[in-house]
This record gives sequence, C-alpha cells and structure tokens, in this order.
Amino acid sequence: MKKVIVDMDGVMADVYHQLIQFEKRDSGTEMKPDSMTGKPELESFPNGKKHVNEVGFFRTLPVMEGSQKAIEYLNSKYDLYIVSAGMEFPNSLREKYDWLAEHFPFITWEQIVLCGSKKVVSGDVMIDDYPKNLDHFSGQRLIFTQPHNELIENETYTRVNSWEEIMEIL
Amino acid sequence: MKKVIVDMDGVMADVYHQLIQFEKRDSGTEMKPDSMTGKPELESFPNGKKHVNEVGFFRTLPVMEGSQKAIEYLNSKYDLYIVSAGMEFPNSLREKYDWLAEHFPFITWEQIVLCGSKKVVSGDVMIDDYPKNLDHFSGQRLIFTQPHNELIENETYTRVNSWEEIMEIL
Repeated sequence: MKKVIVDMDGVMADVYHQLIQFEKRDSGTEMKPDSMTGKPELESFPNGKKHVNEVGFFRTLPVMEGSQKAIEYLNSKYDLYIVSAGMEFPNSLREKYDWLAEHFPFITWEQIVLCGSKKVVSGDVMIDDYPKNLDHFSGQRLIFTQPHNELIENETYTRVNSWEEIMEIL
Repeated sequence: MKKVIVDMDGVMADVYHQLIQFEKRDSGTEMKPDSMTGKPELESFPNGKKHVNEVGFFRTLPVMEGSQKAIEYLNSKYDLYIVSAGMEFPNSLREKYDWLAEHFPFITWEQIVLCGSKKVVSGDVMIDDYPKNLDHFSGQRLIFTQPHNELIENETYTRVNSWEEIMEIL
C-alpha cells in the first residue's frame, strides 16, 4: 500500500487565516492575502513570530477547507502519515496532537510524526507547502498552494490548489 | 554524510532502571533484571503500564551509560537524528524534548523526531532496541541489547551491548 505523507500547517491547518485574525486582534491591522504572495510566511506579518510562539496558537488553528473529508478518503485508501515540523515550537507538540484528535479523530497515534527536519522521512507521496520539505523527498511531490509558495515553479512538483484537486489526483 | 537514526528509550535512556526504581517505590518489590530476559518490557513489571503514563516518567529517565560521550562523537561524524516513538504517551512529547535539552544539549531541534510508528523513517544506520522498528528500516540495523530483546537472533541485525561497542563499529 502506498505511503502518503501529509503536512499539517498550511495544508491541513489554515495558518494564514489564524495569523490574519491574531494580527487584527493585536494591532487592528486588516492584512490582505494579496500582499503576501511570494514572501516567507512569517515575514508577511508584523507580529508573526510572536504569534506562533503564543500558547494556543496551534491548538486553535482553523481546519483547511475540504481537508477533513479528503483525508478521511485518503486514509481509507493509503497508508497515511501526518508529518509536521513542530519541534521548533515545543509548545506546539501537545497542541498538534490534541488538534488532530479533535478534528481528525480517525487518525491514530501510530500515524503521527512530529519532527524538526523532514530529511529522514520517506514514502511514496508527500503533500506539503514548503520546498525545503519536498526537496528531500524521493517520491511524488505535491505542493499545496499557499501565498508564500505561489511564485515557485519547479517541474518536480505537482501543484495542487485545493483538497478537491488532491482527491482527483490520488 | 551518512544519516544515523538513534532511538531514545532503551538506548539513550535507561527505561529498565527507572521501572525498577518506580516499582520499588510503589510496591516495595525489588525486581531483578535476570527475571526479565525475553519478556516484553512492560510485562516484566506489575505496575509498568501505570508508571509509563505517570507525569514525569520520561522527563526523569536516567541517561544510558556511555551514551552522552558516544552520541557527541557520532554527532560530529554523521548526520544524526534522534527518533523516538513517543506518540502513544502524549505527556511524553514535551518531556522527551526537555530531557534531550538537558542531557544532550548539542542536539538541535532540527535533529529530533517524535513519532508513532517508525515505518516512514529512512537513513543509513538505525540503533534501536525494538525489532518492530528495525524491521522496517532499509539501512544497517544495530540492535541495542536490553532484557526484552536478549533472546532474539536475526542475521540482519548487528547486536551491540554498550555504547562503547557502537563507537567501535561507527
């Protein structure tokens, strides 16, 4: 059975939506996604680095549109693993575990990997929004469109703009 | 540079020593390692399952003899990753992170992986005490002797009885 590796932040969880909400809450600024194209995620937000270190940031991330239904489908068809680079933010470890239990209760603990780098992760398909993760992966590479990666063109990636598109491919 | 994957419990951290201490504390029983040969780890201890779920169990594990010096050496020579199956015990996630920061401060967050199953972990060398982890690994397999694995004979494993032996091989 094919091993499918799915990233959390920016793929299953809508990090931009949360950062926009937190920025508005703290500074009153209404950030527009159009201004973020091609910029590193946290550089788009004046208080981005502060917000991702806040207790509860990862626990309360909104679910990416269409991801629950699609991942339940992929989970029935493939050997699925959720692989998230949470180690930079140690507060996020338990928050990510609890977030998955709430929103994706069909994912078992055996299927979860929280790491620093993804250089030792292997499988047949990887769905991720970051080139730094995809570039070390030897299988099929699906880049999930997010503002920070919109301008990247790489012929080794298949670009997917939504979970509906992923379901059509996999 | 070769990727070396090192397990925590039973390899870097002395789980048996901790379980023996906790058993003595709770029931007064002095467990002897000789009685544990070939038995699954937790089945050797009347209160083993309770103890591994206790807050602080993983944070206070004693360091395996010789592991600090040896891992510092391996870290200077190889692309080293610490891969631990902590997901079954969500309390352990932060405890394992803090334990590594205390006892192995030269290991960076990029080098840490906390997972459920190790089926998606790849590399050139794996040092682990569990066949269930080694058997999915395509590189060189070093089995670190612990009472539960002492009777296992498998020609695809290289048995190592101490960190000194690992340094002679790697």
